[in-house]
Amino acid sequence: MPKLKCILETALYVKNLPAAEKFYSQVLGLPLLAKQKGRHLFYWVGRDVLLIFYAPKTLKDKTTPHGAKGPGHLAFEVSQKDYGLWKKYLTKNRVKIVEEVIWKKPNFRSIYFRDPSGNLLEIATPGIWEKIK
Amino acid sequence: MPKLKCILETALYVKNLPAAEKFYSQVLGLPLLAKQKGRHLFYWVGRDVLLIFYAPKTLKDKTTPHGAKGPGHLAFEVSQKDYGLWKKYLTKNRVKIVEEVIWKKPNFRSIYFRDPSGNLLEIATPGIWEKIK
Repeated sequence: MPKLKCILETALYVKNLPAAEKFYSQVLGLPLLAKQKGRHLFYWVGRDVLLIFYAPKTLKDKTTPHGAKGPGHLAFEVSQKDYGLWKKYLTKNRVKIVEEVIWKKPNFRSIYFRDPSGNLLEIATPGIWEKIK
Repeated sequence: MPKLKCILETALYVKNLPAAEKFYSQVLGLPLLAKQKGRHLFYWVGRDVLLIFYAPKTLKDKTTPHGAKGPGHLAFEVSQKDYGLWKKYLTKNRVKIVEEVIWKKPNFRSIYFRDPSGNLLEIATPGIWEKIK
């Protein structure tokens, strides 16, 4: 059977696009890839693409409606070196870290925080899943 | 400022975990990475990780509750060769292709279909975003 190679696009839904743009562009520093006022913001995350939609709009799409309500989740991967920097950087930018998890080995760590719409975001160090496999 | 390297985990929420397991394991052929009855199914998608949650459960998480309702979205990337095979394979497995989009250049194509919970899934050929950049 044919193979699914990787995940090309990950989607989150937000309550307010301008607030999301400020957060994802300015606080998280992601480069904007595309934007449609009142509908979406698309970002590069390294090789990956993050789609941020306004669900009341995308639920009205004719052929392929979609749109979720409530806090979604995704995890970003960062280098071991950047992990510590992110902790300081988020705190400095008044983004509350709601939890830090130290996984089975001390070098595998995650911090959790929320975007302005309440989506649960995670920043994790490389290798977490390989070790559980 | 520190960098976000890539997206490590992408999440979808489903109404029924056994139906989702049948679909993602058997129809899409993804290898299961972890499973917690009544809460989640985690899958490998090549280098990436897809988290499938039952929101009524994860919304009760103590420190990091999350969980969305309504049709979410993600896109899988496949090779040019596998793209045609997926179209045939999904139809053969009674998964309805709701739309096919031919992007600006004919070699960039997407098909859209739904999982048993109504999440809008996409299978796309490589290079779509690079060409729009």
